[in-house]
Amino acid sequence: MTIRTIVWGENIHEQTNEVVRSIYPDGMHTVIAAALNTDPAITASTATLQEDEHGLPSARLAETDVLLWWGHKDHGAVSDEVVERVAKRVWEGMGLIVLHSGHFSKIFKRLMGTPCALKWREAGERERLWAVNPVHPIAAGLPEHFVLENEEMYGEAFSVPEPLETVFISWFAGGEVFRSGMTWRRGAGNIFYFRPGHETYPTYHDATVQQVLRNAVKWADNPLAPYLAVHDAPNVPVESALEPIVERGPRLHEAGEAGYR
Amino acid sequence: MTIRTIVWGENIHEQTNEVVRSIYPDGMHTVIAAALNTDPAITASTATLQEDEHGLPSARLAETDVLLWWGHKDHGAVSDEVVERVAKRVWEGMGLIVLHSGHFSKIFKRLMGTPCALKWREAGERERLWAVNPVHPIAAGLPEHFVLENEEMYGEAFSVPEPLETVFISWFAGGEVFRSGMTWRRGAGNIFYFRPGHETYPTYHDATVQQVLRNAVKWADNPLAPYLAVHDAPNVPVESALEPIVERGPRLHEAGEAGYR
Amino acid sequence: MTIRTIVWGENIHEQTNEVVRSIYPDGMHTVIAAALNTDPAITASTATLQEDEHGLPSARLAETDVLLWWGHKDHGAVSDEVVERVAKRVWEGMGLIVLHSGHFSKIFKRLMGTPCALKWREAGERERLWAVNPVHPIAAGLPEHFVLENEEMYGEAFSVPEPLETVFISWFAGGEVFRSGMTWRRGAGNIFYFRPGHETYPTYHDATVQQVLRNAVKWADNPLAPYLAVHDAPNVPVESALEPIVERGPRLHEAGEAGYR
Amino acid sequence: MTIRTIVWGENIHEQTNEVVRSIYPDGMHTVIAAALNTDPAITASTATLQEDEHGLPSARLAETDVLLWWGHKDHGAVSDEVVERVAKRVWEGMGLIVLHSGHFSKIFKRLMGTPCALKWREAGERERLWAVNPVHPIAAGLPEHFVLENEEMYGEAFSVPEPLETVFISWFAGGEVFRSGMTWRRGAGNIFYFRPGHETYPTYHDATVQQVLRNAVKWADNPLAPYLAVHDAPNVPVESALEPIVERGPRLHEAGEAGYR
Repeated sequence: MTIRTIVWGENIHEQTNEVVRSIYPDGMHTVIAAALNTDPAITASTATLQEDEHGLPSARLAETDVLLWWGHKDHGAVSDEVVERVAKRVWEGMGLIVLHSGHFSKIFKRLMGTPCALKWREAGERERLWAVNPVHPIAAGLPEHFVLENEEMYGEAFSVPEPLETVFISWFAGGEVFRSGMTWRRGAGNIFYFRPGHETYPTYHDATVQQVLRNAVKWADNPLAPYLAVHDAPNVPVESALEPIVERGPRLHEAGEAGYR
Repeated sequence: MTIRTIVWGENIHEQTNEVVRSIYPDGMHTVIAAALNTDPAITASTATLQEDEHGLPSARLAETDVLLWWGHKDHGAVSDEVVERVAKRVWEGMGLIVLHSGHFSKIFKRLMGTPCALKWREAGERERLWAVNPVHPIAAGLPEHFVLENEEMYGEAFSVPEPLETVFISWFAGGEVFRSGMTWRRGAGNIFYFRPGHETYPTYHDATVQQVLRNAVKWADNPLAPYLAVHDAPNVPVESALEPIVERGPRLHEAGEAGYR
Repeated sequence: MTIRTIVWGENIHEQTNEVVRSIYPDGMHTVIAAALNTDPAITASTATLQEDEHGLPSARLAETDVLLWWGHKDHGAVSDEVVERVAKRVWEGMGLIVLHSGHFSKIFKRLMGTPCALKWREAGERERLWAVNPVHPIAAGLPEHFVLENEEMYGEAFSVPEPLETVFISWFAGGEVFRSGMTWRRGAGNIFYFRPGHETYPTYHDATVQQVLRNAVKWADNPLAPYLAVHDAPNVPVESALEPIVERGPRLHEAGEAGYR
Repeated sequence: MTIRTIVWGENIHEQTNEVVRSIYPDGMHTVIAAALNTDPAITASTATLQEDEHGLPSARLAETDVLLWWGHKDHGAVSDEVVERVAKRVWEGMGLIVLHSGHFSKIFKRLMGTPCALKWREAGERERLWAVNPVHPIAAGLPEHFVLENEEMYGEAFSVPEPLETVFISWFAGGEVFRSGMTWRRGAGNIFYFRPGHETYPTYHDATVQQVLRNAVKWADNPLAPYLAVHDAPNVPVESALEPIVERGPRLHEAGEAGYR
């Protein structure tokens, strides 16, 4: 079975800005999905902010292995209900790849538990990405560094939790550095943040960037069955304790009562 | 200057349950604060759910170095505004120590980005805590293991992010284990979760538990000035780039415009 | 291509101790290799201390994807040269799974950089392993806990570096706990330590233990080409700098000179 | 009591190279020790390769809280016995700060368990260090970035284990990046690697670098008593098990026998 993947695009700049439309006439999400679909192991479709439930109804998410997220201009327009729905699926095992300005998306901040802030400059400067973890699956087949001649600068300090692993660090012509590829796990869900992808440059047409995204989808995919128990806080009655114990002392809860939340 | 500490107590069971009241007639928060105040380096006061703004107005939080949090019966009664306020102070550098059933508090889930669920059993069984990181500052002066003769059981899998360090692991008579002491950093804030402390047992009267809490307050304290920039996403104009660069290519933002959030 | 796997066995107790021989008449390594070979994705062979170069000549290691290591009675008999050879292959990407008393093997201590010490008791007591990370690939298909009715006890504190992830924690009838499954990466090599496996009990005949080992082999396998550059410290001459720079100030090395080691 | 600190210097370049001698006429170690001693909390002395036992006899190490290590030209001249002695003290709680070319020292490779290799270029180019973890104690009082106008370049991939925390990342004029400040713990010992410090530039005369070193000494200091048990693998006899258990099944060891190493 292939990795069922959704590329979520905010899809605003492409509709409102001439420059962005000229680079991505059918939307950034479409270009990304096409790049993923060149890999026979991946089946990528798209969803956008403008669709009903932002294109992410529960039934569709339940059949999704990996979700990519690009948003920028209107993070606030994403409904809190959909954000919680996506978070739950991540905890159950859906992979999540957050792209560029998605660092300020509700879903990324929700899963990181931090502000996810950073410095920025839109000057079309040179970015060079170094694989500091060159044998990480996300760096498979990549050179030890690669250049994006025109990109927006993102600079440290990037207020995210210490990652599981740092995969890429960027050098910018203007003098900044940035941890451009980092991984985390939340519940059963693998999360990868990948920095490049400013809308006014053709970043998602770049072959190396496309390779990173394909690698990341394969890395983020968790083939195990959804971990639905991640939400549960089951009571284990004394009678069914694994080792024989006798109840002692006072208790608050009646037998069989659910815990508080 | 001493470490300005608040012990926050939900303060419901103590008012409504005879058993709990008999153990903690003035509230669990009062016992904990008194235990902290035996250390001359700490100045602990208390706050409760029932107070205006739950006793955590912005001005008070701004002068707080470390906050301890015990809640259980009515996590939902804590206002979202206060939760965000506390989260912001943690990112700026306030330490946070989450106790026992506080694993399901809004503030802990907010900062972890995960369900924070676990198994439980209220049978007054024996818990033995092992210091797996015996030279961590939070384990200072402790024996290699200590016993709480009657405690509620919490069992794995505990759905929290992989910690910075694991300090304690518990053994339960009924056959379960639990990572009972773990650390994380979120922004500038040090976070420690400590498992014991069920309301129907005299856990916070235990001398070793009190030592852990004093150690944890000292560890969580960040003496640096509040890191207010953690919330900011400043634009760095081309003219003030650290290395001379020339603007190239199209851009989306006007000069001086704020970024989207 | 299948995962080329070697199960290395010290093979002393099986030759010298009646109890061990009765459980593993052809050696523990043979039982483990057979268990791995039930998975069509794995091709496992064996090597022992007594063979020339301990069965691990360079040419064989170069064609090995994952190595499992069981040793106990005579860690000191393993030649330092072979240890360095194995370490190099791990850095280049060979997976390493260290079993039970292998915690004191030269190769494990070499890669951890710590004493790797622990408490122990040989009483055939009950061990219950909990998957604290139940959706980790190494826990695939396992129940949330499983029991080994007779095992040697290993107790914390286990002096190893903080792991990348903790997968299993053990509960022992005698009152101890132990982090029984932990992962690390060293260079390109994935490392997994798995606690059970005392020679006087039939642990490696246990179906769940065998499943863990198969899972671990698949997890440890790094399909990327060997990362030979991990050993190199290349000079990057000024003339071939990625950004144009001019040499300034004094220097110690002559052009083209190798760095010191 | 102040933090008892030794600055260890290889002290070869200062004796053999005119450029280095002109910058550090009394040795780099002397300049570093003097910078540390401006802090009343620190008492720093020096030791060099040329002294008996390299200036690190056991009795002196036993009374040392933090050791700084600078070596480059002749790592191989450091005796293996002294290296093991230092490693043991680190595991027991002595802090270790490894400087610049010390990345290839025996003691750093011993504790990391990896090659610790990197790219390099000696061109006196500009290095800008960014504090990616600006509220880490090692970054206390520092600006968000600082520049060393002339430094040797070190480039990724730096083959060290994933750190506990990344504190600094460097930008180089020639286009590389480097994780210039990282922390690890080995046993009870806190370890910090700090990149700058090439011998042909006046780096250790820089006020900000000196501040980093003072911060690092305070961070690395572990005030707890030496953790001598880190080396031990004690047998816990059945009779003294914490929970009553009965010995079952065969065993290998006689009662009271020591374990194998």
